[in-house]
Order: sequence, then C-alpha cells, then structure tokens
Amino acid sequence: MASSDQQSTTSTPLVWRVNVRTRTCMREPVPESWLRLGGRALVARILVDEVPATCEPLGPYNKLLFCPGLLVGHMLSACDRLSIGGKSPLTGGVKEANAGGTTGLQMVYLGIKALIIEDMPAEPGWWVLHLSAHGARFDKAEDGGSEHGLVGLGVHDAAHRLLEKYGSNVALSLIGQGGEMKLCASGIQNLDKDHRPSRIAARGGLGAVMGSKGLKAIVFDAAQGQKPHVVDPEGFKEAQKAYTKAVIEHPQSRVYKDYGTTAVARMAYSFGALPTRNFSSGNFEQMENISGETLRQTILERGKQNIPGSEAQPSHACMPGCTIQSSNVFADANGKCIVSPLEYETIALMGTNLGIGNLEQIARLNAAADDIGIDTIEIGATLGVAAEAGLLKFGDWERALELIDEIRRGTPLGRILGNGAAITGKVFGVDRVPVVKNQAMSGYEPRAIKGTGVTYATTPQGADHTCGLTIRDKVDHLDPKGQADLSRTKQINMAGFDSLGACIFAGFGFSLVPQVISQFINTRYGWGVPVTFLQDLGKESLKLEREFNRLAGFTPADDRLPEFMTREPLPPLNPVFDVPNEDLDGVFNW
Amino acid sequence: MASSDQQSTTSTPLVWRVNVRTRTCMREPVPESWLRLGGRALVARILVDEVPATCEPLGPYNKLLFCPGLLVGHMLSACDRLSIGGKSPLTGGVKEANAGGTTGLQMVYLGIKALIIEDMPAEPGWWVLHLSAHGARFDKAEDGGSEHGLVGLGVHDAAHRLLEKYGSNVALSLIGQGGEMKLCASGIQNLDKDHRPSRIAARGGLGAVMGSKGLKAIVFDAAQGQKPHVVDPEGFKEAQKAYTKAVIEHPQSRVYKDYGTTAVARMAYSFGALPTRNFSSGNFEQMENISGETLRQTILERGKQNIPGSEAQPSHACMPGCTIQSSNVFADANGKCIVSPLEYETIALMGTNLGIGNLEQIARLNAAADDIGIDTIEIGATLGVAAEAGLLKFGDWERALELIDEIRRGTPLGRILGNGAAITGKVFGVDRVPVVKNQAMSGYEPRAIKGTGVTYATTPQGADHTCGLTIRDKVDHLDPKGQADLSRTKQINMAGFDSLGACIFAGFGFSLVPQVISQFINTRYGWGVPVTFLQDLGKESLKLEREFNRLAGFTPADDRLPEFMTREPLPPLNPVFDVPNEDLDGVFNW
Repeated sequence: MASSDQQSTTSTPLVWRVNVRTRTCMREPVPESWLRLGGRALVARILVDEVPATCEPLGPYNKLLFCPGLLVGHMLSACDRLSIGGKSPLTGGVKEANAGGTTGLQMVYLGIKALIIEDMPAEPGWWVLHLSAHGARFDKAEDGGSEHGLVGLGVHDAAHRLLEKYGSNVALSLIGQGGEMKLCASGIQNLDKDHRPSRIAARGGLGAVMGSKGLKAIVFDAAQGQKPHVVDPEGFKEAQKAYTKAVIEHPQSRVYKDYGTTAVARMAYSFGALPTRNFSSGNFEQMENISGETLRQTILERGKQNIPGSEAQPSHACMPGCTIQSSNVFADANGKCIVSPLEYETIALMGTNLGIGNLEQIARLNAAADDIGIDTIEIGATLGVAAEAGLLKFGDWERALELIDEIRRGTPLGRILGNGAAITGKVFGVDRVPVVKNQAMSGYEPRAIKGTGVTYATTPQGADHTCGLTIRDKVDHLDPKGQADLSRTKQINMAGFDSLGACIFAGFGFSLVPQVISQFINTRYGWGVPVTFLQDLGKESLKLEREFNRLAGFTPADDRLPEFMTREPLPPLNPVFDVPNEDLDGVFNW
Repeated sequence: MASSDQQSTTSTPLVWRVNVRTRTCMREPVPESWLRLGGRALVARILVDEVPATCEPLGPYNKLLFCPGLLVGHMLSACDRLSIGGKSPLTGGVKEANAGGTTGLQMVYLGIKALIIEDMPAEPGWWVLHLSAHGARFDKAEDGGSEHGLVGLGVHDAAHRLLEKYGSNVALSLIGQGGEMKLCASGIQNLDKDHRPSRIAARGGLGAVMGSKGLKAIVFDAAQGQKPHVVDPEGFKEAQKAYTKAVIEHPQSRVYKDYGTTAVARMAYSFGALPTRNFSSGNFEQMENISGETLRQTILERGKQNIPGSEAQPSHACMPGCTIQSSNVFADANGKCIVSPLEYETIALMGTNLGIGNLEQIARLNAAADDIGIDTIEIGATLGVAAEAGLLKFGDWERALELIDEIRRGTPLGRILGNGAAITGKVFGVDRVPVVKNQAMSGYEPRAIKGTGVTYATTPQGADHTCGLTIRDKVDHLDPKGQADLSRTKQINMAGFDSLGACIFAGFGFSLVPQVISQFINTRYGWGVPVTFLQDLGKESLKLEREFNRLAGFTPADDRLPEFMTREPLPPLNPVFDVPNEDLDGVFNW
C-alpha cells in the first residue's frame, strides 16, 4: 500500500497529496501562489483553489488539509501551531481549526508544507495513515475490541496503542468516537509534548471530515526528518532573542503562566459577560469557585501535597519550547490527571453556562468530551440548549456527564447532541441557541462584549473568539459604536497569527517587538517581506475565506447574531446586541 | 378574550390580523397592493411586506398567513384551495403550502381576504382561535387527557372534539402532536367535505409555526357569513359553464377520477423515475402491487362486497363541487376507512422509497403520519434516509410504523425524524439525502425527469413537485437540454394556479379554455385583467418569493440538487443530473 512518486527529500518542503480511495500519496512541488502562505491562509487558499465550495462536506469532493504555520519548526515560544482545515460540516463554510502540540513540528521536519487528504474510501473501513521520510503507508485499523485494534476507542486508549505500535516519538492526529460517527462537533486530537492526546483542533467538525475519509489516525514519524532550512541563521537567532525576551517580559505572560486562559474569568464576570445558564445571564453567582485564582490554588494544592508522582501542574507547555505555558494539568485529590488543560472557554461553556460551579466536575466533563474527540465549547453550548429543552437541570453535572456518554455511545439522543447546538435547538424546538453559522459561541457574551459579538457575527469561521477577541481592549464594551473597527483590527491580526502558527499569546510578545515578525520570515525564508506582513497575511486569509464562503452561498444574512440576543436584555446590565447591520457589513472594508 | 375593532360585515373582504400575545383581532382594509393578489402570491407579498426575512421562523417576528385563492368561494370544480404561509422552519425561506377542503370556502364566506397571525404567547399554553362573523375569540385548549381537552391529541380525535363543541358545519385548521412539538415536518390539517381532517397544508413545517403561536386549532364558523359578491353574475356563470365542460371533457379528468394521483405511478416507472429505496433506484420490482390500477381495483373490491356502510371510494371530492374527484377513501377489508386520500406521492415516498410494495401497509403508515399532522412526503424521505442509517430495513413496514410512532411520542429519535430528511441525514451521517433547501423531493426522481429536477432545484419553495411537474410533457426527460425552459413555463403557471386557489387538475380544464381565467376574474371582481393574468400572477408570485429568499440569504448555491444525484447514476437507465448550473440560474430570466 506504500506509494511515493519521488525520492525522499526533506530539504525542500512539498505538498503531500494523499488519496484515500487509491491509498496513494503524491509528493508535489508547492505551487507558486501557495509558497508564501502557511497555516490558516494556506488552508483558505487550497480550499478556494481545489474544493468546490458547494460540495457535500462529508463527501468525496471535500479535502482535509493540514498546514503548519510559517514559523513552525523552530520551537519558538508559542509558534508551532498547526492549522487543520476543510469545508466544515457544521457551518457549511470555510474551516480552519488550529492546535498546539507536536504535529506541526514533525510535519515541518518531514518537509510537508501541506498535507492534502482527498476523496473517500471505496469501501467502508478504517485506516491509519503513516507518514515518514519514506512516504505514506496505509495500515488497516482493526476493531478496538481486538488486542491492537483502534476503531471505537476514545483518543486516550487509541493514542496509547498507536504509540506502542509506532514508537513514542511520533506525532499523532487522531479522532475519537465522535469523528468516527461523523458528528459535527468532532475535532482532531494531537499529542502535547508529554504525548497526551489533548491538543484538539476542535471547532467546526473536522473530526467528521477525517472520519468520512476513513482515517482513525495519522502518524507523523519524523525520525529521519530534519530541521527546516534557515536562510540567515544569525539574523533568525537575533529575532528569536528579541522575541523571547519580549514574551518573558510582557506582564500578561506571567498572568497566563500562572492562571492560564482562566485569567480572563473574573474580567468576563466584571463585564457581566460570563455565559450563564444557556446565555440567559452574564452573571454567575458561584464565579469565585471557578476563577483563575481558584483554579491555580486548587492545582497548587494538589501538586504540593507530597503525593508521589502527582501530575498536577498549574503551568504547562503544550508545545516544546513554549515559555508562556498557559496550559495546565488538572489532577484529582490523589494527584492523578483528570484533564489537561482545563481552559477558560471550557469552564465557561461546561461550567457557568450549565450552572455548574465546581472545577473538578467541569474537569470531568471536559475529560469525557476530550476522549470522544469533541469540541468542549460546542458541547457545552449544546448541553445548555438541552437544559432549556428539559433534558437536564442546570447544575446537574452527573446528568451532563450521562449526556456526554450518550454521545460516546451514539444513541439517537447522543447523535443529536454530538452534532452541536444548532441541530439540538432545531430538534427540540428551542429558540435560545447561541450560534452563528451554526457554530457555538464561547465564553464571552456578545451582548456585553460587543466587539467580540461583531467577531462572532462576521468571521467567516462561524462564532469563534479566537478570530478576534476584544475583551482586553480599553473600550466601553456596551457601546455599539466603534466595535466593528475594533473587531476588524483584531480579525486581521488573528488571521495573521493563525497563518504564522503563532498562539494568541505569542501576540503579547509580538506586540512589544512587532518588527520581529518580518525579521523572522525574512531570515528564515529570504523573502524580503515588509513589516506589515502580519496584516497582509491576515487580510489575504480573510479575503480567501470570504471568497470560499461566498461561493458556498453565504451572504450578509449569515453575518448576524441569533435573534434572541437582539431582543432579550442580558442580566445584570441588560444590554441587547445592537451593533447596526451596516457596521457588521462593513467589517471587511479595509 | 373577544375583541374586534369594527362591526361585523362580510361584504367587503378585510385583512384579519390576530395577535396571539394580546389575544386580539384587528380587521383592516386590504392595502391597495394586496388587492389583486390571492393565495400563494398574497402570501409572498405579505411576507415581503411584513416579515423580516432573517427572522427566527419559530420566533415572534414570523407570521402565519392564511390566504384563500382568488377564485375561492364559488365551488368551482377544484378551485377552492387555501394557501397557508410563513417563513419556513424547514427551509429558512418563503413557504406556501396549499390544501383543499373547506377552510378556504368558509374564510371567503367570512370575508377574510387574509388572516395574519402574529407574535407569540407571553406564557406557554394552548388556545383555540375561533373566528366568526362576530370576530375572534380565544378559547383555552386543555390537555387531551381531560374530557374536552385537545392538547397532545392527534388530529382525528382533536377534530372530533372540536366539531362536537363548535358544531359540525365549521371549518378547521389544526395541528397534531407534530406541530405542538414544533417539528419541521409538521403541517396544518383541514377538513374535507366529509369533515375528515385529511387535507393537509403539508410542506415546509407550517404546523411548527402554528405551534409556536400557541394555537392548537383555528375554527372558522361562517354560519352568519355570506357568499362573495360577484360583479357580473351572468358572465361568471358563462365562464363557469365553459370551464366545467372543459374539465369534464378533458381526457385526464377521467383518468384522475378513476385512478387518482396514482395514475402517474406507471408513467414514473416507465421512465425509470420511481423513487426506490432512498432514491437509489428508479425501478421498483413490485410496482404493479402499488399502481393506480391496483389501487382502484382494491378500493372497488372493498367497496362492493356488500359490506354495509363500507367507506371505500375510488373517487372522492375533497372540496364541495369538485367534478374531478381525484381523492379516494382507502378502506380495510371490512370497509373501514384507513386513510383518505391515498395519493401517489405518499405511495412513492412511503412505499417504493422504503421498499414497501403493499397498499394497505402504505395506507397505514400514511394514516399514522396524517394523525400526527406531519408531511408524508418529508417523512417518507426521512425514513428512507433512516433506512440507510440502519434504523430500519427496506420493506419492513412494521418498523416504519414504529418509527412514526416515535415521532408521535416525541422521543429523541422521533424528534430527529420529525424534523425531516436533511436533519436526519446530518444526525446519522448519511450523505444520500434527497432534499433541496432542506425540503424532501417527492415521487419523481429528478435524474430521470430532469425538468422536474430543475423545478426541485430552483423553486423558492424547496423541492416540491407541485411547483412545476414536467412528467406529462412530451420531451426526452433524460436530455438536459431545454429542461430549464420547460420548468420555467410550468413554475409560472403553477404559481398562478396556486394564487387562484386552483388545484393542479383544474389546469386540465383551463388548458382547453385558457381565456376563462381572466373571464372569471373580470366577472367576479370587475378588474379588466388581460388573458395573460395567470402568468402575470405567477411571475409576480415567483418574483416576490425570490426577493424574500434573497433577503433571507439564499443564493444560486441553494438552487442545486444534492451532490449525490450529480455523481451517482440512477438504475436502471443510469442517468445523473446534468442540467448545467447556468441553465438553473437562468430559470427566472423571463
């Protein structure tokens, strides 16, 4: 089943094109127009160039794309992220979801500029795609009930067996039962630097696309790979020095190292913007139980109680070389890891949004969803809608866990939930459904943080805070004026960072030394790009994404928040979302 | 709870505007621009004028509209149809679904040009809206478990209780459990001339809209109403004479009187266009068991076996005065009515499409769905998708009946199915889903009848054969050429007929004496319209519908058949759907 059209060489990055019907891999030169793109921008470019925008997302014409960001491969702090993409079965539009971990690094070591997975298997069946310097190989994946089988397993067991078989140094991208069932909330899990399958490209249902291609896992074995060529190593090192210093010195880095993403919980609360009980309030009375401070305290206690081998870590790097280390390892009272990381968005969506004010309970819900390989934001929002439909009581975490297990077991109810909040709302006739383009919002109530509301409404990706979060900006978040301008700037920058492979927190460092971005690129590739490169890349990415969506049939009518947010005031401050449609429609006029 | 803003008068038709929050009714003069519209065209006009196209279909901004066609009120053969409309929760676009029966007649007798139902109840609860010459009254609907209660009952029991309470001469529009649960496949049932709740405005989920308005039923009591004013009674009578003669003499009338809509089954079969086993074949090997001839034979036998009071009727008028009588009453071996009517589209979707070749079994599935108040086309297509997902075996009618009962009981599985084929496909990861704009196709395979495929793809209503069926036209149905032109002509005419209140079979009569349409209108209303009135009305209707959809966010990408039909050849003749997109996009260029 192995196939390769040219001798192994990792010095010049290539496009690896894998066909799951013929089970072959072609390694091709990178087209000129793709060369200077990476990550999210390259995903968008390939989608526009190769995928018919109106195609069935789970059919043979969709493609699953893996594109490391332009800066990946050097263990720069928070800059080794991988973009995974395709046409989203959840939104029906363009989709890029990125993740940290080790996959991007190993892809670059293998010289893979972009991995394009095409077509569908002729017969039902599951495969492991093995990629190494020798090319591609398809290994049959057996039923998880057999000794080395994988099919039907959660990502933890599956990853364990894969690492046993392929060696502990490989990188993995794999799906859980969610992706196998082609659920629209399913993502693709990747290993963190400690080989935990915990870095999920979560959003938009890319796990279902991988499932439709018959792939349970992709193994990236860079044992015979090599570090990427750097045109001007000295210059690169200089940039690296300036950047690393900036990252370390930025005051937010310390905050995020200590508190992780949950640092933002109190801030959201103070703005009345903490999604609570299915987005019916911005104010959760048990907020202190789930704040970043409580989270740190809890982890510290569980780490220091002289428990031999306790896995608890308040700060943890998901990627080798990261100095921010916003990740954490949340352990139980015996020091055993429940989940890593426990992030703010999950705490909001699976916690406050469900009326649950207990970190350990939230961590267990998080872990259950992670193992199925499904997006905790989407599922948290979905369970909120399910609560509105009477399927659970707010605050009842055991019932929430049962419902997540329904997803794992693939019952009819589980399949509804596993397809996300929009479908769940439709099936149960609930009209308070916090989605845009069918994708759930995360932990920032858009009525109270209106700039982020503009981002949710207008980003081509469907509601997604990572496309342009505005909560840290010094503006009146309740004032509709100027929010579109703010969102525009953020969206451009974030699309740029996502194309570089830079984590949102890398932005802290870059904000102090913005010139190092072009310096990195020019010393790495020798391209001579201007200092506006980040924005140029961001704009190019957004332009391509909007073009794909336009061809897929999206219009301004899709760039709107759900109706209930425009007519139901949000306690305690009682705003509605009132950014004018004209402002929303002007976000991409730059 | 009664309210009325002006003295009862039925001489000048008015707009009745009912608000379900305040439980009041305003009777208003008809706006100038609505005057010459009726039925489907008036639905489209009101939607464009009053409903924000992007609104939540089950929210307060959507409106439920009842508009009799322009010819309704005179018991002209097959011309008393009522259009019901609103924004569709199934398609997200414009929706008009029409039905025969007695509701349209009584509305006209009450002088109701259009009934507009607005807003949402402030509190959950169910009501019966009673309309009479005295105005509107809201009566509380109690739980069906109580003696006179209605809530939770199927349409047969509910209609029975309503007729007991309000008198047997009223007309009713009511919903079953499907509409109560706001399922997207739910319609609105109306009484036929024998007081059976069997004339369903089935398509597009208008039952859910009625459910969202908190109305279990609307009672139309025209006891003190009056026949509509006719400007030139002699001229009208003359037109009526010519029209009735034409209807009786048209050879197709006899065919439809004898065989009902099922007359077309053999024709569809001969073209390889009979939807079979979830649209995977156009050829059903048991076709003879379900043909129009077998249907007629079966009903005749069950009618003539000297069974006292046998209800079996091979020909039956759904509306008073209809000479075509394409309806039927399908009875069991003891002469007891199972369902009325058993129609071709149901036989195709719940029969051949499910691999079921037994009329009595199909009739029982039909009856079960009817009683829940759900669309048999949508549910038949949904069960086909469910079979593909492994939820039933093709041919297993008892399992199909169980699944329909899941819908009635509102189990999670039932709610999935009750929301239609598109959602069912999504939830279960099936990619062979025969829908356009999320609405299921009916009994004509578009790969083998390509003109009808063009209609399915492009009609603003979502896949719907009644918007322009081409099977009876003498063309090569497999040739993609010219099909867009054919569909255009049909769609214009059908939109015209739907605006007149004329049944598709009235078209047979009108085709022989086309000038009587303007003669009817001019002698009835004194407007002086040209002989092109039918087409003018049809074009106006389509223009408005497309405008509403455009505002709702529809684009050419929505005017496409499902992808599988463009790549999977259809046995036995193996066509794919290959009408070029440019042709589809040119259908409305006239």
